[in-house]
Amino acid sequence: MSKIRIAIAGYGNLGKGVELAIRQNDDMELVGVFTRRAPETVKLLTDGIPVYPIADIANYKDAVDVLIICGGSATDLPVQTPELAKLFNVIDSFDTHARIPEHFANVDAAAKAGGKLAMISLGWDPGLFSLNRVYAESILRDGATYTFWGKGVSQGHSDAIRRVKGVKRGIQYTCPVESAIEAVRSGSQPQLTTRDKHERVCYVVAEEGADKAQIENDIKTMKNYFDEYNTTVNFIDEETFDREHNTLPHGGFVIRSGKTGNGTSQTIEYSLKLGSNPEFTASVLAAYARALSRLHAEGKTGCMTAFDVAPGYLSPLSPEELRVHCL
Amino acid sequence: MSKIRIAIAGYGNLGKGVELAIRQNDDMELVGVFTRRAPETVKLLTDGIPVYPIADIANYKDAVDVLIICGGSATDLPVQTPELAKLFNVIDSFDTHARIPEHFANVDAAAKAGGKLAMISLGWDPGLFSLNRVYAESILRDGATYTFWGKGVSQGHSDAIRRVKGVKRGIQYTCPVESAIEAVRSGSQPQLTTRDKHERVCYVVAEEGADKAQIENDIKTMKNYFDEYNTTVNFIDEETFDREHNTLPHGGFVIRSGKTGNGTSQTIEYSLKLGSNPEFTASVLAAYARALSRLHAEGKTGCMTAFDVAPGYLSPLSPEELRVHCL
Repeated sequence: MSKIRIAIAGYGNLGKGVELAIRQNDDMELVGVFTRRAPETVKLLTDGIPVYPIADIANYKDAVDVLIICGGSATDLPVQTPELAKLFNVIDSFDTHARIPEHFANVDAAAKAGGKLAMISLGWDPGLFSLNRVYAESILRDGATYTFWGKGVSQGHSDAIRRVKGVKRGIQYTCPVESAIEAVRSGSQPQLTTRDKHERVCYVVAEEGADKAQIENDIKTMKNYFDEYNTTVNFIDEETFDREHNTLPHGGFVIRSGKTGNGTSQTIEYSLKLGSNPEFTASVLAAYARALSRLHAEGKTGCMTAFDVAPGYLSPLSPEELRVHCL
Repeated sequence: MSKIRIAIAGYGNLGKGVELAIRQNDDMELVGVFTRRAPETVKLLTDGIPVYPIADIANYKDAVDVLIICGGSATDLPVQTPELAKLFNVIDSFDTHARIPEHFANVDAAAKAGGKLAMISLGWDPGLFSLNRVYAESILRDGATYTFWGKGVSQGHSDAIRRVKGVKRGIQYTCPVESAIEAVRSGSQPQLTTRDKHERVCYVVAEEGADKAQIENDIKTMKNYFDEYNTTVNFIDEETFDREHNTLPHGGFVIRSGKTGNGTSQTIEYSLKLGSNPEFTASVLAAYARALSRLHAEGKTGCMTAFDVAPGYLSPLSPEELRVHCL
């Protein structure tokens, strides 16, 4: 059987993660990487894979079964995914929740026009967390769903710290509040805002001679970012920073607490503990690339999300094997 | 929009659970219960729902959209599901893992012959645990999957206790070993047998004058049931037994511990804490009844499992609503 020919558009942390994920799937092969940078300046982790300018991508439309678009949600994906869905079967990890309906409509129209299949908003949230919300809410009709994020690095909050006067290096972890998780697990169905559920832990390397008390105050009182959260600021030296804060862990919990019958408590909990957010997200994208290539082969076109894909399509095993080994 | 007309075949704990689950879904209605008992001896929880002899079930084939078959896996379902799948869209919770391929083939042939759609082996294991194994193994290709059961009542082991001389009442809980769960969560991917992962906790009411030391010994040394497990026997009085051991809790964990990239640890964990095993299983069956009625309306026939059903089909929300509220 021929392998699924996958290409990557955009070679940052996520694109590198997809390159690594493809190595773990022996029914897939990486056929190329497309970049806005000068191709000769892009060094892949794998030898022998060509790097092309993204401007030339249309030339390769018959050489790629699935294109995984690894751009950012703010400005890249809203433009790239609809454009590329006319020419390729595409997958993205678009995560601006409020703009998903608009993005879906744009990608759906483009993919249908090109006879292609697209899958958007894949990864873990949106993605695996989303489908766990749907399963849990469909089964436990009377209940409440809680999503907790972390412990994980928030890029936006880390950027905000680094803009504070006197900060040389900075990183921010969003952490779930343990007592809030326990309250949810107890079945009491508490009312909790995002603020009640999370705290913010910062690690900062101060410039030499900087006023640490002032830095701490500037961070903790920063509007919209930190002022309404329980925030901790830890000052560390640069060597410690480089040694202990050089990865991008993340994770979280989706918990549905519900009642059946005459008030029987039932709890469904899904959690992720991720050593690397981009590598895990990339592994989700790779699995959905398999599903996409199968569904397109069945004649499906247009746009899909995780809600539209039966779980069996993600697995390299056949339906018969799945029933024997996993059911 | 007309409601999904659901009937129940077999009115034990699971059938009662389905009756209660239908009340929580306002797009469904219970139209009848079929029983092998004399119908006038069966008292439902809901007024005004007819009870029919199962021998007459063929007469009602046009009055039912989905028949949920609530018999046992040992002898009922292998016969009932294929027979009834010729006449009805059916769902069952067949859970004899080793016989699933045979059961699937029988039900698939019957349903196709009748132009009907069937879904088998639904509930939480097989069912939700199965699909979590598939999602997790499709995403984290390099890793190990662990299933833990409990804390929950094992009917077979409870029956075994009650056959011991001097035992008046008895119940057995299968409990996951906490240290084994922690070892799995650590990412160390330990080798663990079912025995390493579980212990057995028994509650016994002894007959008056019975030799408790002998009872404890008889239980702990019982071949195939207890002898190779860490087993605890607690003697309690009958009043305590009736008060504290009158429900059927269960649950468990599916944990996938894997590596991505150059050895990055990633962990996916799914867990259930169920106040009532039959009520929860019934809630799963009700959600899949919705999916079944939609998929049959799309023209699907034959047999499906949880692997073949896209998550969105389970929800009462439309695809548009799901994208807005759950993605």
